[in-house]
Amino acid sequence: LWNKNLSCKDFVSRLGRVGFQSVELKRAADVVVKMKKSGAKVFLTFTSNMVTSGLRGFFAQLVRLKLVDVIVTTTGAIEEDIMRAFGEKFFVGSFRSDDVALYEQGVNRVGNLFISNESYAKFEAKIKGFLGDCFSAKPRWPVSELLREIGLKLDDVDSFLFQAAKNDVPVFCPGITDGAFGFHLFLFQQTHKDFVVDVVKDFANIVFSSNQDMKKGGIILGGGISKHHAIFSCLINGGLDFAVYLTTSNPASGSMSSATTSEAKSWGKIRDDSDAVTVFGDVSITFPLMMSFALEVLSDEGLIEDE
Amino acid sequence: LWNKNLSCKDFVSRLGRVGFQSVELKRAADVVVKMKKSGAKVFLTFTSNMVTSGLRGFFAQLVRLKLVDVIVTTTGAIEEDIMRAFGEKFFVGSFRSDDVALYEQGVNRVGNLFISNESYAKFEAKIKGFLGDCFSAKPRWPVSELLREIGLKLDDVDSFLFQAAKNDVPVFCPGITDGAFGFHLFLFQQTHKDFVVDVVKDFANIVFSSNQDMKKGGIILGGGISKHHAIFSCLINGGLDFAVYLTTSNPASGSMSSATTSEAKSWGKIRDDSDAVTVFGDVSITFPLMMSFALEVLSDEGLIEDE
Amino acid sequence: LWNKNLSCKDFVSRLGRVGFQSVELKRAADVVVKMKKSGAKVFLTFTSNMVTSGLRGFFAQLVRLKLVDVIVTTTGAIEEDIMRAFGEKFFVGSFRSDDVALYEQGVNRVGNLFISNESYAKFEAKIKGFLGDCFSAKPRWPVSELLREIGLKLDDVDSFLFQAAKNDVPVFCPGITDGAFGFHLFLFQQTHKDFVVDVVKDFANIVFSSNQDMKKGGIILGGGISKHHAIFSCLINGGLDFAVYLTTSNPASGSMSSATTSEAKSWGKIRDDSDAVTVFGDVSITFPLMMSFALEVLSDEGLIEDE
Amino acid sequence: LWNKNLSCKDFVSRLGRVGFQSVELKRAADVVVKMKKSGAKVFLTFTSNMVTSGLRGFFAQLVRLKLVDVIVTTTGAIEEDIMRAFGEKFFVGSFRSDDVALYEQGVNRVGNLFISNESYAKFEAKIKGFLGDCFSAKPRWPVSELLREIGLKLDDVDSFLFQAAKNDVPVFCPGITDGAFGFHLFLFQQTHKDFVVDVVKDFANIVFSSNQDMKKGGIILGGGISKHHAIFSCLINGGLDFAVYLTTSNPASGSMSSATTSEAKSWGKIRDDSDAVTVFGDVSITFPLMMSFALEVLSDEGLIEDE
Repeated sequence: LWNKNLSCKDFVSRLGRVGFQSVELKRAADVVVKMKKSGAKVFLTFTSNMVTSGLRGFFAQLVRLKLVDVIVTTTGAIEEDIMRAFGEKFFVGSFRSDDVALYEQGVNRVGNLFISNESYAKFEAKIKGFLGDCFSAKPRWPVSELLREIGLKLDDVDSFLFQAAKNDVPVFCPGITDGAFGFHLFLFQQTHKDFVVDVVKDFANIVFSSNQDMKKGGIILGGGISKHHAIFSCLINGGLDFAVYLTTSNPASGSMSSATTSEAKSWGKIRDDSDAVTVFGDVSITFPLMMSFALEVLSDEGLIEDE
Repeated sequence: LWNKNLSCKDFVSRLGRVGFQSVELKRAADVVVKMKKSGAKVFLTFTSNMVTSGLRGFFAQLVRLKLVDVIVTTTGAIEEDIMRAFGEKFFVGSFRSDDVALYEQGVNRVGNLFISNESYAKFEAKIKGFLGDCFSAKPRWPVSELLREIGLKLDDVDSFLFQAAKNDVPVFCPGITDGAFGFHLFLFQQTHKDFVVDVVKDFANIVFSSNQDMKKGGIILGGGISKHHAIFSCLINGGLDFAVYLTTSNPASGSMSSATTSEAKSWGKIRDDSDAVTVFGDVSITFPLMMSFALEVLSDEGLIEDE
Repeated sequence: LWNKNLSCKDFVSRLGRVGFQSVELKRAADVVVKMKKSGAKVFLTFTSNMVTSGLRGFFAQLVRLKLVDVIVTTTGAIEEDIMRAFGEKFFVGSFRSDDVALYEQGVNRVGNLFISNESYAKFEAKIKGFLGDCFSAKPRWPVSELLREIGLKLDDVDSFLFQAAKNDVPVFCPGITDGAFGFHLFLFQQTHKDFVVDVVKDFANIVFSSNQDMKKGGIILGGGISKHHAIFSCLINGGLDFAVYLTTSNPASGSMSSATTSEAKSWGKIRDDSDAVTVFGDVSITFPLMMSFALEVLSDEGLIEDE
Repeated sequence: LWNKNLSCKDFVSRLGRVGFQSVELKRAADVVVKMKKSGAKVFLTFTSNMVTSGLRGFFAQLVRLKLVDVIVTTTGAIEEDIMRAFGEKFFVGSFRSDDVALYEQGVNRVGNLFISNESYAKFEAKIKGFLGDCFSAKPRWPVSELLREIGLKLDDVDSFLFQAAKNDVPVFCPGITDGAFGFHLFLFQQTHKDFVVDVVKDFANIVFSSNQDMKKGGIILGGGISKHHAIFSCLINGGLDFAVYLTTSNPASGSMSSATTSEAKSWGKIRDDSDAVTVFGDVSITFPLMMSFALEVLSDEGLIEDE
């Protein structure tokens, strides 16, 4: 039931009595609260479209509020965070656009969002300088250390790379070459043969970012390599104690993106006694809704600063 | 961005800047507001699982608040509304239940919700008396008139049949025989051969419930016969001026459940200049979220009573 | 592995060793074979978009080959079968059409298929005469008996209504008023007040079309009222012994369209020891593939005529 | 319509007249034929679950038949190809397994497929030796060169790594550390500090594997990093001339996995005049069906060897 001036927290509480995915969303929000109260190390993973969407500033806020300890994401997310930090804007458009016309206008579509070619040009202009600075310090860079250096240079409170760097939250990106960032790494290596991005060392870094003895929690948005990398690295350290998976995929396909928290238990990726919930639905809605509830509860209990 | 004591209304406002389905949800909420402010006749349709879920009382509230003028639904929704009006409870369970074990315990599963056989027995006990009373008045009943009589007998503020009957909102159910209700109609007709449920007359009733000259709006939850019936009856009267479709289906299958508001324009089911939005995602989340925003806005403008 | 001149039967056999939905499709094909060999009464259900697609002639063939004993479908399927029987054609178009332009051209879109307004006009011209003929025989018609009369007049080997009528296969349509057919029933009743479509009597007909003692099988394409009606009527007679569900829906929504064969066991809709398989995927591909395998096997064993 | 001894080729031809995804599948098969006849460089991408499924040998066959020029995939696919090359078997199970029980038995679930812990142990035993051999030749390895060395040692006709190595088809894996393979790279680097996997150099390799002047085609199975990497590297060289996307994802989420061929045109990833088709449905069914048609046609025209 609705009432005047309904709060987001009460709204999610009521979802817990509705059914289907609303119940699972409330359960997931409860798991996030529990994960924080237990002192677990929290891994947040997201795909690049989550940063194309307006959730980027929210990710940055979560890092600032100490909700998150480790981030795993993809190259597109990093590129777009950098573009936005330099003032580029994305636009809300339509899923049913004329894509050939958009191309001719220099506009790239991601679902119902638009990114202009100018934003990529801006990214290009900045990234060269960054890589030069890093290389002059040393030739061999694990990915997360490179991203930390870049984050420190951004100076935008809504940038997750900036907030992560400031708050000692490592950002892992196991497929770093897959995107415009990769293209610029390649161009740079053409003229700096000794330049190495050391992905193997970064695997050590993510494995050592947690250990067998600490509790571990995962907030997993969408699927793909970000999802798998976080839960696989936790598997090596005994599996996740808490996990929420937010996805749009149907498990019928057997894909990683759609693999449920139940399936993860067969692998030991999630401990069999862990609190684990899968929520099906668009992450641009389910994630902020789940987190708004969790943040209110944690704030009520004095476990995070208010905003 | 989150802030302490975030309201549901502000939350949805912010979704309008995120992207993907969150943007569509905000757009849909705006269309609901516009539809009401234009004075449109509002058709609400839902599938039976929406009543299995805890949304039943919310539907009743929307009728009471005069948000809705016509309801179209399926037999299961009617049966379950009646069971609940007599105090039966449904239970929140799990999608991954042992279904053979549930069967042995007399428990029926709908997704992650459970309905017991006792609830059906209670329904059976009541429906016989209802039909006897109706038949003694006349032998031939259009569906919506039968449902009105039943609604008047329920006396439960959270029953949508009760609220609809009290507020002169017709409830249409074009596939009335498809469920336990149909089974009892059949048993009753075995001993009362003259008893007729006149579905053709009820088609006249839904067609005459609106007309060419009035603005018409549709809030369409899920798909199936409820969805098609509402938009088809509006097509006969010139098409919908406003429409929001909330669904989990992928349009790739060509099914009615997944047919978008865009496709409806090709049929004239939605006027080509209408405000029409499709939101993909679990309706148990997207519908209450969309409506909570719309209700706050309408309440702020004095267009509905507060609660 | 592929080899030159691969047969459809061998192809499906090999799918049984692949995984994910290909395995389920092979299992489903095996269940269809078993269902026929056991002598089960076979219920086939389909949504109207299956008839919009080119599967109509295949349904007619299955009836002719005695694969199917009872059909349950929706109004759209019946309308389109009649249009096509009178020579109307549908066209293959695109999912990404300009729907407003199509409307202006008098073209209606169903996914990537197009139906012209002329086809509806042709339907209208014919249906009036049909109803007059039927009414002159008697005023009160259960749906399946009305459809049988219409089927007998069609004379098109590719019409499922025609083949069903010729082969004593009843066609049930519990939501008969939901479509252009309903509109014409309504117009006819305006001038023939005694005309009654007796849906309650037709519920008796579907219940009596099988019984507790016979084995029962369901081939369920898509969801909605067609699906529910067939399995509910079998539930009354002790549940299905064999069932294959072919669907595109994700069970996460708790809808009837997505409800799995496992969920049906909790209701007794499927006996707990029955052979039951759910295949996720586009039915326009999975259904003909599954049936082609089953038909070859049944033909090899002399259980159906060759074609 | 079905006929006795229906061939797979005729089956797919007939799908072209059905509608919804069956039409798109036939269109996709035609694009594959056209792509080969034009002499395009063909990029095949697949996610790891495609190798968990029984499609591995089919991928190997396609390489042997010269259908494919470049492969892009993920770490899981590589690990599982190696396990299978050493005789490990995977098992067909059920989507609704007891995952905690499976874990206790040392069985890992991927949808309805099972992989035992022994298979991972076998992989571990082999990979150490491989890495030692490679390191003794040189310390710095682009991924595709490392995979080529490994492929040459496998000696299993059904291994795609083996066939790729033998037929000079590079296998790219931009997220190589994300899996058990990554874990062993990490262990090896702990004792061999100079060991470097050079992902940046491999980006150069994939960019140089095609060029602006040659026609380029993509056969894209599922989504994720494999999909993006292939189409992004082709974008740098002017975009794909031909593309087929086979996916289960709904574009509503804005994810890479669900991004359609239309969206890709806005980016220039696919040339605006290219032949591009998206097919929604389970790839374990749609891919072998599409390819069987294409292989028959190409074989009829003498463009591939028969098998």
